[in-house]
Amino acid sequence: MKDKDYYIVTTLCDKQEIANNISNALLDDKLVAGSQIFKVKSSYWWNGNIETKEEFKLEFRTREDKVDEIVKTIKSLHDYEASEISKTKIGCLTEEMKVWIDESVE
Amino acid sequence: MKDKDYYIVTTLCDKQEIANNISNALLDDKLVAGSQIFKVKSSYWWNGNIETKEEFKLEFRTREDKVDEIVKTIKSLHDYEASEISKTKIGCLTEEMKVWIDESVE
Amino acid sequence: MKDKDYYIVTTLCDKQEIANNISNALLDDKLVAGSQIFKVKSSYWWNGNIETKEEFKLEFRTREDKVDEIVKTIKSLHDYEASEISKTKIGCLTEEMKVWIDESVE
Repeated sequence: MKDKDYYIVTTLCDKQEIANNISNALLDDKLVAGSQIFKVKSSYWWNGNIETKEEFKLEFRTREDKVDEIVKTIKSLHDYEASEISKTKIGCLTEEMKVWIDESVE
Repeated sequence: MKDKDYYIVTTLCDKQEIANNISNALLDDKLVAGSQIFKVKSSYWWNGNIETKEEFKLEFRTREDKVDEIVKTIKSLHDYEASEISKTKIGCLTEEMKVWIDESVE
Repeated sequence: MKDKDYYIVTTLCDKQEIANNISNALLDDKLVAGSQIFKVKSSYWWNGNIETKEEFKLEFRTREDKVDEIVKTIKSLHDYEASEISKTKIGCLTEEMKVWIDESVE
């Protein structure tokens, strides 16, 4: 049986309340095992201008089969018109980490 | 047609002004769609010693075909002798994210 | 000869002293070339509950052949029952970066 793949899913938002709502919803629905929220200074192109603001970067540890539903949940709670949501594949280096993610999302 | 690949390119520097210069130059030249700047505590081997200092970690969202020119720009603005520049492949999980990156770097 | 692969190895912990101990040990033993420590707000499933706390995220730049020993060192110094340790493959975009990692871990 093929080993399952694990991912970090990330998004960005500029309101602490929305960052917390997204994080809580994904944990409550057992779509992610853990979340980390970082404060960052963001600059980006939007509607032909470069905008700069304080944002929160959210990182979620999860398993491949939960990614689609995570995207749906983030989109439903986010207030950005075009929310940036991306995934990066990670290798779990301890068996406990796999067990922890598997048990958390099941 | 093969789908384009998207990356986060990162570098580290210890001066806020240089972090801002690099971020602004990459955005102005439409080489990246967005940048995030994080404060970190860094320790690393340099010339046979372990050094510790506050640094800024820069993350840039971009498309594969822009990476070479990003490296050139960072090197031209950085004050480190051997600047650390790396890339990590990301999967865009929303169509809007691809459109946003594509429109930002064209 | 196949090019060596380079990775970022990450872990999380909630005590500054342990974060520093892990970082120092990995550098002293020349298992990593550099470490970055970020402050994050973490929430995660643990023993059937969602816990929230301030944590430190540690990132280590290293080479493939050092990963197993890094895991052993982190486990020996960590105070978490099930420590999360993961790796993400990175592409080095400058020759100096490869040289720096290679020289640091040898």
